[in-house]
Amino acid sequence: MAGLADVHALLFDVFGTVVDWRGSITREVERLGKEHGIDGDWNEFAKTWGRGYIENTQRIAHGGEGSLSVDVMHRESLQNMLDTPQWKPFGDKLTNEARDELNLIWHKLDGWPDATPGLYALKKEAIIATLSNGNVRLLLNMAKHADLPWDTILSAELFGSFKPDPNVYLGAIKHLSLEPHNCAMVAAHLFDLRGAASVGMRTVYIPRPGENPNGEEVKLRADNGDVDIVVESFTELAAILAKRK
Amino acid sequence: MAGLADVHALLFDVFGTVVDWRGSITREVERLGKEHGIDGDWNEFAKTWGRGYIENTQRIAHGGEGSLSVDVMHRESLQNMLDTPQWKPFGDKLTNEARDELNLIWHKLDGWPDATPGLYALKKEAIIATLSNGNVRLLLNMAKHADLPWDTILSAELFGSFKPDPNVYLGAIKHLSLEPHNCAMVAAHLFDLRGAASVGMRTVYIPRPGENPNGEEVKLRADNGDVDIVVESFTELAAILAKRK
Repeated sequence: MAGLADVHALLFDVFGTVVDWRGSITREVERLGKEHGIDGDWNEFAKTWGRGYIENTQRIAHGGEGSLSVDVMHRESLQNMLDTPQWKPFGDKLTNEARDELNLIWHKLDGWPDATPGLYALKKEAIIATLSNGNVRLLLNMAKHADLPWDTILSAELFGSFKPDPNVYLGAIKHLSLEPHNCAMVAAHLFDLRGAASVGMRTVYIPRPGENPNGEEVKLRADNGDVDIVVESFTELAAILAKRK
Repeated sequence: MAGLADVHALLFDVFGTVVDWRGSITREVERLGKEHGIDGDWNEFAKTWGRGYIENTQRIAHGGEGSLSVDVMHRESLQNMLDTPQWKPFGDKLTNEARDELNLIWHKLDGWPDATPGLYALKKEAIIATLSNGNVRLLLNMAKHADLPWDTILSAELFGSFKPDPNVYLGAIKHLSLEPHNCAMVAAHLFDLRGAASVGMRTVYIPRPGENPNGEEVKLRADNGDVDIVVESFTELAAILAKRK
């Protein structure tokens, strides 16, 4: 607990950490498929769509070229997927307008069950803000949809790159007028926590189903120094922070 | 009402529009004065301190030099005031540490009576965000202190200038992924509303006691085209927006 004693602000990864993107997308495309009489592995569809986002943001974070708008990125990935033989029958049913609308599912993802009650409890203990690769508007819409009571929305978009580029973490810390060790990154992904730790932030790891497909969570332990603390839910994190007083 | 039909986001000036800075500062310095046995015109003290902020931000908005941190600006103004013959007796009682602490009063200003209930109601009708010359951390602390349920905190600090520099309004609009006419500026000051209108935003004027010492509010009427709408409270604005559905 020593690691979090001086933490005044918690910065949250959002996709996978706060909201269950894969479950939400799977449910939506499955519903849409049924509506058009198309069958398919919808969980696989969701995973592939999400992977395009991860690959693009990581490439840009490390200096590559590409759109800084996650909305544009998702729309391009969708277009590419619907052109593949596997998903063309589904794509044939979707007009450009229907594709634009489907793309907005990324603004309406559902929170993990502990997300909303956990964030309300955490808001009493510290500043709670997003620090996501998603754009500001997307994060705003998601907060309204899933009842996520952020104190403010911080996005990689404001700092011209993507996590784990150190400039993203440093930009957020600067605008909070805090020192790095007064801020903790909360995430379900080790690459994000390593990026935060590299600039001196504290780190909170929360395992979420399917978010570390390479089995990182098994190797990852607070007591071997990879992260400062591991929690199972936001409500558990709130209880830990409440004990500081 | 036509003017607000397509508004998806309301951007709020904060000092004077949402919070009663003069009343809050006056109460605090009066309390502190009594504690040290000093008497003075505390309302005048508050007004002078606030004026330093307004003059500095306006100068920088129009291309002048100076600190972009409103905390630094307030601290320098305080230092200068406490060196004047009028306030030196008060200054003599305040250590540097006490002055630093007094400076934080700007993070703990009280909302006008309609602010909190009005913002909760408005949050159901549109995105509600600050667009203040105050820095992000100050606005975050104020929101926690006065229970202001912003969807996000936008600050001139993020865009490297101050209102009424058009870049501040345009930066906010861009990060909300909206067109200017989908955003309304809500303010008690005509210079701010003119700046917003100059980039194509809608404008909501709310008169607040003492905020327009030159009698601007008397000359200002929605029906002569200065602003799109005039309201007496945030709750009135929420009722107007609720009727759009």
